[in-house]
Amino acid sequence: MSALPTDGRVVALSGGVGGAKLALGLYRVLPPDSLTVIVNTGDDFDHLGLRICPDLDTTLYTLAGLAHPEAGWGRRDETWTFMRALESLGSETWFRLGDGDLALHVERTRRLARDESLTAFIGAIARRLGIRAAIVPMSDDPVRTRVMTDHGELGFQEYFVRLRCEPAVRSLRFEGAAAANVSAAAADALDQPGLAAVIVCPSNPFLSIDPILAVPEMRSLLKQAAAPVIAVSPLIGEHAVKGPTAKIMRELGWTVAATSVAEHYGDLIDGFVLDERDREQAGRVQVPLAMTDTLMTGLPDRERVARAALALARELRDPGPAEGPV
Amino acid sequence: MSALPTDGRVVALSGGVGGAKLALGLYRVLPPDSLTVIVNTGDDFDHLGLRICPDLDTTLYTLAGLAHPEAGWGRRDETWTFMRALESLGSETWFRLGDGDLALHVERTRRLARDESLTAFIGAIARRLGIRAAIVPMSDDPVRTRVMTDHGELGFQEYFVRLRCEPAVRSLRFEGAAAANVSAAAADALDQPGLAAVIVCPSNPFLSIDPILAVPEMRSLLKQAAAPVIAVSPLIGEHAVKGPTAKIMRELGWTVAATSVAEHYGDLIDGFVLDERDREQAGRVQVPLAMTDTLMTGLPDRERVARAALALARELRDPGPAEGPV
Repeated sequence: MSALPTDGRVVALSGGVGGAKLALGLYRVLPPDSLTVIVNTGDDFDHLGLRICPDLDTTLYTLAGLAHPEAGWGRRDETWTFMRALESLGSETWFRLGDGDLALHVERTRRLARDESLTAFIGAIARRLGIRAAIVPMSDDPVRTRVMTDHGELGFQEYFVRLRCEPAVRSLRFEGAAAANVSAAAADALDQPGLAAVIVCPSNPFLSIDPILAVPEMRSLLKQAAAPVIAVSPLIGEHAVKGPTAKIMRELGWTVAATSVAEHYGDLIDGFVLDERDREQAGRVQVPLAMTDTLMTGLPDRERVARAALALARELRDPGPAEGPV
Repeated sequence: MSALPTDGRVVALSGGVGGAKLALGLYRVLPPDSLTVIVNTGDDFDHLGLRICPDLDTTLYTLAGLAHPEAGWGRRDETWTFMRALESLGSETWFRLGDGDLALHVERTRRLARDESLTAFIGAIARRLGIRAAIVPMSDDPVRTRVMTDHGELGFQEYFVRLRCEPAVRSLRFEGAAAANVSAAAADALDQPGLAAVIVCPSNPFLSIDPILAVPEMRSLLKQAAAPVIAVSPLIGEHAVKGPTAKIMRELGWTVAATSVAEHYGDLIDGFVLDERDREQAGRVQVPLAMTDTLMTGLPDRERVARAALALARELRDPGPAEGPV
């Protein structure tokens, strides 16, 4: 097991379930207080009068050790009395809200209504839950992912949850992004001289990472960052481990392959972590590569992928003797 | 067992737990669709961004058969995951909200925000829960009970739940009452020619019934009602079955006795149901009396007290041969 990088802070860009797995790996291999996770808020929506931030909450629960071990979303030891009662009242039940999860939505809605920023709220909750990483929304301004499909334009959760990603995606639009500002905490995290690595987590590039990149300053902050930007492939062969990445890539006209993801990120990234099963694609990726088994089933997997990404960043940052103190 | 009155509608005025017991008795002995319960909303408040209406909800749960069998408030088969999670987030937990109960608050808050009236919302929920009685708020306008105590002025729930009625009450104020209108459904229920009885349930006269009476039109509607107004004593000897009635009466300078309750209601009532254990007080009540065991432990008790109150109303309405078809 290699020594861990301890020479600076690391920033991760992440969506929900898939991204949070690697965020947890990074959190575990890095020293405390050295990770900032910038999280997609394009999936956020108002439902039943409550502000729901699925990706931020998944990240919180994952890093706090509260996440449901199988589902990847929601809380462990959850109960569902609220949903059953809501159903008996004839209300909307297509978006499942667990009883414990609801506490976060109710508390957030209350505090945002008192003009607390989303950044401040998530920061306070993360500290309260004992998380020693910064979890920050990409923006405190509303950005809402809209999905243009063969069934018309849909809100993200309508498409993703209510219609289970069944409509074919024609294009995506990030409503509000053009007018949004990168959150101060995200900007500060990217704009520090001692930054060691920026890791783009293996979230869906189109649904989860693109909304982050759609906030105007974000690309320039990434380009000016002192550290290399490393993306981790969300694909193994033609398959995403979870979720509709492969289906959407096909619908948007991309070849379903890790190389397409690297191509999609283009000159934004300085390095790419490819699954070792996709070794034959290595020659077609235009940036320096690391290869590992990217399938993250247990904690050791999450740590392994985190180490691979961090090692590649270190290599690119300090291209000295290949066998340096990685 | 006497025949039931079937010749008109009945209106009950009620607060929470104690009143709902008799409302259930009336509901069970009357034909379907003939009871209207006008419920106190002075206890309503906004908490965690949710509109909570404790007395309306207790009435709904009680008549729907969903009430907690022992507590008298909240739902049966309730779970408490939300409160535990809320506590872990460091939020306010002095007001206990069950997971199932929460569905009603979330759904109400959402629908009131869309300009649905409280009357319309409660009506829709009552129908949805299969209740064949009308449950109507005393007013659709906000009335908030404020408690002047030796610890200063308190909101009702602060006094009642947070401080467990411990401060000594100096006086009560029903904020908003002067400007409030009786809800149209309550006014219509009281203003019908075929009305058979108005029953003032054995709720706390000062905390639960007075806010209803504080809405300006309410007293004149009761005085002009075609039916006799019958109050049921909330006291047995010097004790209230539940809640702080006796303590508050003492603090407000009243002798703790059923006669004081009758005196407090004054010329608003035409008849009074006294507990048979208080027989020796009978001579000091200025209105016609019925006597029964008013302790409502099980369903048969609730039905017995309901029948006693309805029989007294019938007697006063139709003072013919004493042995008529009651």
